[in-house]
Amino acid sequence: MRWQAWLAEQREAREQAGLQRVLRPRSAGDDVIDLAGNDYLGLSAHPDVRTAAAEAARVWGAGSGASRLVTGTTTLHGELEDELAAFTGREAALVLSTGYHANLSAVTALADRDCLIVSDAHVHASLIDAARLSRAAVEVVPHNDVDAVRTALAEAGARRAVVLTESVYSVLGDVAPVAELADVCAEHGALLLVDEAHGLGVAGTGGRGLVSELGEAPHVVMTATSSKSLGAMGGAVLGSAELVDHLINRARPFIFDTALAPAPTAGALAALRLVRRHPELPERVHRRTAQLAHRLGTPRSAGAVLSVPMPTPRGALAAQAEAHDAGVRVGCFRPPSVPDEVSRLRITSQAGLSDDAWAHAVEVLAGIVDRHQEEA
Amino acid sequence: MRWQAWLAEQREAREQAGLQRVLRPRSAGDDVIDLAGNDYLGLSAHPDVRTAAAEAARVWGAGSGASRLVTGTTTLHGELEDELAAFTGREAALVLSTGYHANLSAVTALADRDCLIVSDAHVHASLIDAARLSRAAVEVVPHNDVDAVRTALAEAGARRAVVLTESVYSVLGDVAPVAELADVCAEHGALLLVDEAHGLGVAGTGGRGLVSELGEAPHVVMTATSSKSLGAMGGAVLGSAELVDHLINRARPFIFDTALAPAPTAGALAALRLVRRHPELPERVHRRTAQLAHRLGTPRSAGAVLSVPMPTPRGALAAQAEAHDAGVRVGCFRPPSVPDEVSRLRITSQAGLSDDAWAHAVEVLAGIVDRHQEEA
Repeated sequence: MRWQAWLAEQREAREQAGLQRVLRPRSAGDDVIDLAGNDYLGLSAHPDVRTAAAEAARVWGAGSGASRLVTGTTTLHGELEDELAAFTGREAALVLSTGYHANLSAVTALADRDCLIVSDAHVHASLIDAARLSRAAVEVVPHNDVDAVRTALAEAGARRAVVLTESVYSVLGDVAPVAELADVCAEHGALLLVDEAHGLGVAGTGGRGLVSELGEAPHVVMTATSSKSLGAMGGAVLGSAELVDHLINRARPFIFDTALAPAPTAGALAALRLVRRHPELPERVHRRTAQLAHRLGTPRSAGAVLSVPMPTPRGALAAQAEAHDAGVRVGCFRPPSVPDEVSRLRITSQAGLSDDAWAHAVEVLAGIVDRHQEEA
Repeated sequence: MRWQAWLAEQREAREQAGLQRVLRPRSAGDDVIDLAGNDYLGLSAHPDVRTAAAEAARVWGAGSGASRLVTGTTTLHGELEDELAAFTGREAALVLSTGYHANLSAVTALADRDCLIVSDAHVHASLIDAARLSRAAVEVVPHNDVDAVRTALAEAGARRAVVLTESVYSVLGDVAPVAELADVCAEHGALLLVDEAHGLGVAGTGGRGLVSELGEAPHVVMTATSSKSLGAMGGAVLGSAELVDHLINRARPFIFDTALAPAPTAGALAALRLVRRHPELPERVHRRTAQLAHRLGTPRSAGAVLSVPMPTPRGALAAQAEAHDAGVRVGCFRPPSVPDEVSRLRITSQAGLSDDAWAHAVEVLAGIVDRHQEEA
């Protein structure tokens, strides 16, 4: 049968390239130090966050039961939206099931065939898919190249245009020139969409993200997630009240999706309140990121992500396995999950670890990385 | 600014058409009878399901912390996958964050430019978006028209082809000829993708869905959700082990998304176990659906969804408001959320209500629907 043959061919090609992936379930008792995930502030396991999520499941049930526009919107969703908007200095927010849904919703509800999308070459898969789904013309510009954005917008003429960027890039951990991009977009009457998935809770003053530093900026659309620094699950789009009203009415991945479940909604809300009350959490992440970057000889990041290039996909996997054997879990990104075909370890800083556990992890990783880079 | 003017124009057009939507948060103490949602078996609020979700949040934390391939896969995800596959008689299953993610993943990882997608005219927005995103050629065939599918597949020639259908359609509540479609696909070497979002837990023997009645059928891909009968949140793709392996490696909305949070994962697992142990739950839904359909003069459904056409969008809204004033919440679907431009009440049957509450709801709705249909 042609489909079976095709699936077998695809698998063989992956195996020959050393790119076959498998899922490895972890258990709850697992005591490996996790520097692979995105729970940068350690809030998923914070007692307040666990309790809020558990209590919401008990009071509201396991699910929201329907889409947001039918009966899925609970007062929890409203509270999270109000507090996310207040924290980041935006006028309004809309909560969705995932960051993927947030990016698909924002881009497809705004951009259409009459529109130009100018997209940074390193944006997340969800923004690439969103741009394709929108049917807009898409111009991909070199990474963090403000002049290329300016040129593309100048050539857009009378078309509505949207520029896509992240604030902290998810794989390489570097930061976009958000203020310059916002200025260029304002000059040309374009919207700027900034994905703060890896910025919220970490970058900017008190972890408010980089968009919050722009002031009101009604031409800036922010997307974010509750699955990283906020330790839960879910996505959000933030901006003007008009924008949010438009999304409620037009964004298909919002309208045709069951509302985010009560437990992650309440968990994200509890985490957001902790970040607001404890600015020392993002500060601790920054100190640790700087220390680890120094020790590994990699560039610092305004976020919590460090990217360590490795010679080959197999070498990256070997280094990851050695770290795991020594009790430290790190990420290993290989094509097609990297923007530049370079395999790498992705190591995230973690504010939730004790000083001793953190110091141990730094020493383990420094040893492994030094050895692999010498061998290359 | 051109974007503000565009947003204002869009809003004015919605208001003039009577299609402006707003979110109405509900509170936890709300005692309205809910026949608008998709929690057909009433399991979201079942004590076992609430407790399992709450316990998972307490033990695992509020979030999964990373994507499934990094460290987001927990033993909970594995258990849910194994039990979903066993319940529906499929070889393997893959859990995703939403049903939208499941449909996007299945279609885009399988279909490409060299492929033909044959899509029923009434499939869900997520399948329409998935088809567009895949870049495959898409042929939309009339609703439930097996001959049209056969003709399209005959004309596909040597191309790989995928046919898209739902088992129970979400808005109209009618059922696809799944067995006939599976036969036609087998004859032509095509895949059949069946979205069981509204079938799982309700349709088929013991709520196993309509795909389970096909036997092994490795050419059939099933998608499903944990946000409806299972009362939680999340999506799933089910089929052969080769299919699931392919999705793990290639489906972008799986690879680049944080894993489903522990609470809804555990909630769905607890609900699935209840459905398996209590075949009287889907039976009760069927009895109640038949009774309500008879009383409202609408066609029966093999699922739990009844669709009641209303003369105008505003008339549908008025009937919905009257029902709400009488303590019964029903859905109101207006363009663009309907496949045929006809506004309607969408009323779902509910196994979780007491006999008295159910009887009351039936009488309230029958009175309102009779009056509105007489006036038309």
